[in-house]
Amino acid sequence: MKIGWIGTGVMGAPMVGHLLDAGHEMTVHTRTKERAEEVLDKGAAWAEEPAAVADGAEAVVTMLGYPADVRDTILGDGGLLEALEPGTLLVDHTTSEPSLAEEIAEAAAAKDVPALDGPVSGGDVGARNGKLVIMCGGEEEAFDRAKPLLEAYGATIVLHGGPGAGQHTKMVNQIAISSGMVALCEAMLYAYKSGLDVEQVLDTIGGGAAASFSLQTYAPRLLKGDLEPGFKIDHFIKDLGIALAEAKRMKLALPGLALAEQLYVGAQAQGLGQKGTQALLAALAHLSDAELPQLSG
Amino acid sequence: MKIGWIGTGVMGAPMVGHLLDAGHEMTVHTRTKERAEEVLDKGAAWAEEPAAVADGAEAVVTMLGYPADVRDTILGDGGLLEALEPGTLLVDHTTSEPSLAEEIAEAAAAKDVPALDGPVSGGDVGARNGKLVIMCGGEEEAFDRAKPLLEAYGATIVLHGGPGAGQHTKMVNQIAISSGMVALCEAMLYAYKSGLDVEQVLDTIGGGAAASFSLQTYAPRLLKGDLEPGFKIDHFIKDLGIALAEAKRMKLALPGLALAEQLYVGAQAQGLGQKGTQALLAALAHLSDAELPQLSG
Repeated sequence: MKIGWIGTGVMGAPMVGHLLDAGHEMTVHTRTKERAEEVLDKGAAWAEEPAAVADGAEAVVTMLGYPADVRDTILGDGGLLEALEPGTLLVDHTTSEPSLAEEIAEAAAAKDVPALDGPVSGGDVGARNGKLVIMCGGEEEAFDRAKPLLEAYGATIVLHGGPGAGQHTKMVNQIAISSGMVALCEAMLYAYKSGLDVEQVLDTIGGGAAASFSLQTYAPRLLKGDLEPGFKIDHFIKDLGIALAEAKRMKLALPGLALAEQLYVGAQAQGLGQKGTQALLAALAHLSDAELPQLSG
Repeated sequence: MKIGWIGTGVMGAPMVGHLLDAGHEMTVHTRTKERAEEVLDKGAAWAEEPAAVADGAEAVVTMLGYPADVRDTILGDGGLLEALEPGTLLVDHTTSEPSLAEEIAEAAAAKDVPALDGPVSGGDVGARNGKLVIMCGGEEEAFDRAKPLLEAYGATIVLHGGPGAGQHTKMVNQIAISSGMVALCEAMLYAYKSGLDVEQVLDTIGGGAAASFSLQTYAPRLLKGDLEPGFKIDHFIKDLGIALAEAKRMKLALPGLALAEQLYVGAQAQGLGQKGTQALLAALAHLSDAELPQLSG
């Protein structure tokens, strides 16, 4: 199939790689051409302008950074939607605003373009392994058409409802992760400050009611002083901001989410924005001047 | 071995049962004699006064409610410590203050009584199955002497350091659980309020970075509207208060823990104190007047 793709960053590039491996004809664009080199070397064609990826494409996929990028790229003057032929499938993998996904779906429907919002989780590792979780929102027609493509890089692909439902599901995921990371970091900090052997404590409690993916995955990295992303704090703050805005729009108070977002803003202020989400531990340690030796570089 | 035991509630009773099964000679006391009937029927002897369980005992164990109960029972006038012969082992399983555990160990050492703090996790189910996690603090001598007894009802039994280290470890566990429950409840509430199928969403995200024991264990109960304890909110608030006080004493700011405690106090104010910790969802729903149909029964 001829597919257009916009956004070949740390997530997009390996996803395009899987579609090339599956035999699809890919035309790509990304803001900084150097970031597309890997997929161009693999056989993708280059489009000078974003909307040009739509030329002759049966499906167009976007994997961008911020909601503003999605709006400009898809709905903007000279954007994708103007260039798409009726019947072309439009999929957005960017983690973005549910309300924007609804707006896009409505504008796309007016042009007879089935649209799907499909944010992913699983990080760069999941993208490389082709094992992403893809949370979809849209009409069944759009989902059914997209699914064979998504299977090139997705292990769990679920339609959660109409337009925006994929974005809402991703927000649920981020809400759970955010306060979960606060839980892990505060627990580790208390263990350290009270003089316990942090690793031994986590080993004792990690098999019981305190067990979590975060504890299992990030605690060992933190114990080695490894703050590398994973998923960057700058991007997480974007996601948490979307979740807070949507919750407010729904008149839903989420105090834990609000606190987590503020603590992450603090981490960003401390210069940790390009570190992984687990670097919240360093920010919380700094708050109490309780630097763990592993994290004091 | 001849063992004295004080406190035969929902946790203590099955623990005593396991020691009886292992062939030990038990003498018990508890505030309300009716709550000891199960173990008296099983062959335990009754002591009219708490300190009387020490008569001829090689080891004395307490499983009480609040730190004030521990202080009165062990250090008070006519309390256990006055009654204990030198060389008797003293174990406290109550989740209590680390600083009180240190105080008890010091007073006990002055009487040549080895003391161990050993709060547990695993709940009433773990107590009945004999699969508790026992987090210990004290001298190695006390631990080595206690371990064969603890194995009657413990699956994971770890010495985490000197006196108080068991209590500190339990606090680490509760800190991780508290914000973890906030994470789960807020994620479920957002999913519900945004019109998603909550069960389907949790199924999609529960295998990835949002995975946790709480999600796996409590989400299915919440989806059925089951708020029964498990572990009661009233008791959880006691534990979180201890953790906050200890953290403050160590000059450690834990904003997530402080928020979780306040949200649980709110749940208590709404009459949910005798419900399980998962009932936080009902309290958070109430905050935004967003009652889930399952919970508005």
